[in-house]
Amino acid sequence: MKEDELIQRLTAGAPANKRLRLGPGDDCAVLDCDAPGLWELFKTDAVVEGVHFEPDADPGLVGRKALARCLSDIAAMGGTPSAALVTLGLPSPPDTARLEALYRGLYALAREYEVAVAGGETVAGAGRLFLSVAALGFVEKERCVLRRGARPGDALFVTGELGGSIAGKHLTFEPRVREARWLTNRFALHAMMDLSDGLASDLPRLLRASGVGAELFAEALPLSRAAKVRFRSGATRKRPLEAALTDGEDYELLFAVASKDAVPLLDAWKEAFPETRLSCIGKITSGGGMTIRERKSVRRMELNGYDHLTQS
Amino acid sequence: MKEDELIQRLTAGAPANKRLRLGPGDDCAVLDCDAPGLWELFKTDAVVEGVHFEPDADPGLVGRKALARCLSDIAAMGGTPSAALVTLGLPSPPDTARLEALYRGLYALAREYEVAVAGGETVAGAGRLFLSVAALGFVEKERCVLRRGARPGDALFVTGELGGSIAGKHLTFEPRVREARWLTNRFALHAMMDLSDGLASDLPRLLRASGVGAELFAEALPLSRAAKVRFRSGATRKRPLEAALTDGEDYELLFAVASKDAVPLLDAWKEAFPETRLSCIGKITSGGGMTIRERKSVRRMELNGYDHLTQS
Repeated sequence: MKEDELIQRLTAGAPANKRLRLGPGDDCAVLDCDAPGLWELFKTDAVVEGVHFEPDADPGLVGRKALARCLSDIAAMGGTPSAALVTLGLPSPPDTARLEALYRGLYALAREYEVAVAGGETVAGAGRLFLSVAALGFVEKERCVLRRGARPGDALFVTGELGGSIAGKHLTFEPRVREARWLTNRFALHAMMDLSDGLASDLPRLLRASGVGAELFAEALPLSRAAKVRFRSGATRKRPLEAALTDGEDYELLFAVASKDAVPLLDAWKEAFPETRLSCIGKITSGGGMTIRERKSVRRMELNGYDHLTQS
Repeated sequence: MKEDELIQRLTAGAPANKRLRLGPGDDCAVLDCDAPGLWELFKTDAVVEGVHFEPDADPGLVGRKALARCLSDIAAMGGTPSAALVTLGLPSPPDTARLEALYRGLYALAREYEVAVAGGETVAGAGRLFLSVAALGFVEKERCVLRRGARPGDALFVTGELGGSIAGKHLTFEPRVREARWLTNRFALHAMMDLSDGLASDLPRLLRASGVGAELFAEALPLSRAAKVRFRSGATRKRPLEAALTDGEDYELLFAVASKDAVPLLDAWKEAFPETRLSCIGKITSGGGMTIRERKSVRRMELNGYDHLTQS
């Protein structure tokens, strides 16, 4: 059973109440906290040693990553992060110096984004070190962007570059909070999410939520330097295009806007974020499914993720 | 290094912001979410297989417990829980039927307390099954009760019975949300917390936060039937009094009120909660430290927890 399917089974029948505006299935949950004009965003995420970071990874970057993943999800809804709590699972005995370095890295990122770290729990006896972060954020009701809402004809954009994150970016990526706040302030985004499992897994989630399809332009995909270097050096057999589609942990924003906004958006972006690429990678279609237009061929992908991707 | 000391070291220098009203060190963090008249309460907690539940424990009760622990913390601030997120750490491969049972138990408790379960994450590759729950709640500003605030002369109360939780209550306890709401609606509580590590560990935390001491009346401690049975049957060498002081996972409320309120409170409680004991177990003193008055002796305990408790 795949992760999406398992989560869907487990979250079926999850209790709601009048404060819950959006439950499982988007980047964050959306809650009504009685603040005039604002929704509250609520997210948890965990990193586990040996899965999300290697035992010898810089502990400061591990702490940073645990928080950054949550901030990326809050950014993906258009929100501003406000507070976080950290639960630390410890295999005994704890290595205090390593844990302090881990928290220092987390706190440094929190400070950068003005996020309060409101508390922490430690749980002894975990099989492997894990960090579970719970984060809160706020978003003006009219600027909250969901995964649903993409419309046929919309242009599809992605920030930054894709693929090869394992070479280092998975620990050092910048959550796109500033970029998302800038975007929702200037343009009416129809749908948005962050890329955590790879474009070929994540885009179908946005398409399913919106009830639409998409056509991607292979040549427009922003292939990362890391993906190219890794292929050339033999570190991976994945060609950069496949890496851009299927590597996880890009933590870039994927969003859809009306096609009329595409050119003004690209122009304004270049001025605002001259050092960060923004790429129009395709368009939303009315038909279900997802196609990738390459120079000489068109590939069809199923909407249930890269498990079914035919490797070229 | 003890847990309190480790947490204190790790949370030193935790970033704050203008929304943060109370950071690390109480049952929940307190946040300003711009809701008129309300504070928001924020809490995370995790249970790990082999530490907080045995591998053969009823999975429905495990799910229930994971949420109930957070609700108990929200109760301890006088709050009403509103929403929760669940992060599930999975040793692969997942046992789907067991996970579904676990969620069913958690959802049933959520429904009982009108808590929205707003989403879930699963993380593969955990060494042991763990459930990390993040919970939100709200409290009227004037009804928010902290650990600090106990005053010399106050009467010290505890709900329910203490000790022997391992016999079953640790999985089936009722978080004292209704009782705490009733209390804060009728009486001006000076300080409150929930008992998770045992009275001899938890009370010193309340005393340190309030800058006071306490005198406990050993004969007034509500010794649980489970603690008595376990001692008589030889399941433990801990006498019931020691069990009431040092066993963890009671999840009862411990609170301080002005002595003039003690008798009216006991009277009103009996009518409101005829099936739940409420015991006046001692009084707050101005001197630091904590003493236990037994029939023939007075024991003195240090305020740094039961590690230093002299077994009688």
